[in-house]
Amino acid sequence: MRHHRYLDDFAPGERFTTAGITLTEGQIIDFAMVYDPQPFHLDTHAAAQSPYGGLIASGFQTVALTFRLFIQTGIIAESSIGSPGIDELRWLAPVRPGDTLHAELEVLEVRPSRSKPDRGIVRMLYKTINQHGDTVASYIGNHLLKRAPTLTD
Amino acid sequence: MRHHRYLDDFAPGERFTTAGITLTEGQIIDFAMVYDPQPFHLDTHAAAQSPYGGLIASGFQTVALTFRLFIQTGIIAESSIGSPGIDELRWLAPVRPGDTLHAELEVLEVRPSRSKPDRGIVRMLYKTINQHGDTVASYIGNHLLKRAPTLTD
Repeated sequence: MRHHRYLDDFAPGERFTTAGITLTEGQIIDFAMVYDPQPFHLDTHAAAQSPYGGLIASGFQTVALTFRLFIQTGIIAESSIGSPGIDELRWLAPVRPGDTLHAELEVLEVRPSRSKPDRGIVRMLYKTINQHGDTVASYIGNHLLKRAPTLTD
Repeated sequence: MRHHRYLDDFAPGERFTTAGITLTEGQIIDFAMVYDPQPFHLDTHAAAQSPYGGLIASGFQTVALTFRLFIQTGIIAESSIGSPGIDELRWLAPVRPGDTLHAELEVLEVRPSRSKPDRGIVRMLYKTINQHGDTVASYIGNHLLKRAPTLTD
């Protein structure tokens, strides 16, 4: 069976687990300089005085990395044509320098488009999990995917 | 009046407009290489064949930039202590190389914490708007902010 999937290859309840990635202090600060310049993401001394007690990653970095971990599985490499959006994004626990994150996904819903027969939406629950097993973030991603070519050719 | 604000300085219905930023092809590809390696974000030739007809920015980049535009106003520089999450994130139109984005925000709700008297949540509707006046993305940000020091000292 091919590794990559089209809309019709997904079924509610299916689960996927990604590879991991270790986030360094330098990567946290580089991201924050451009996208989230707040002291607890940028300045180790200010961060030590913040409620977090030390530097933490921007939540936008955590979420984008989570998405990247799924994309790099290749599962939707042939079918993905974008996304209309994300629901219920939650940052649940801090991500600190040296933390290793992976993602666990569950298919919530598979919904062929009514107006465009060549595509549809897969709703997936993403959880970002650290090396201690703590869920640090979660969100529902809505993926716009092509249907299997045999169904539309 | 000071420029920065605490929780109690916000009121539902208030609006803010940020400065703009121009997103280049290089920035789009740099971001996508790390966080969203899909052909329509990385490869101008593949992107030309995609439903978008050309390279577009990762939605994660658009949203993080939108947040950064608000952070750089300094309005919550003294009060921000993080965020529990985002609701109803929508990507409404493509962002292309050379597009200039700014953000428009509206305060939806100001909610002091019941359990922690020194803080609360401001819910804000963020809209990301391009040089043509099109809204390219929107989301509801939940900001955890300190209350005015005079109220908690």
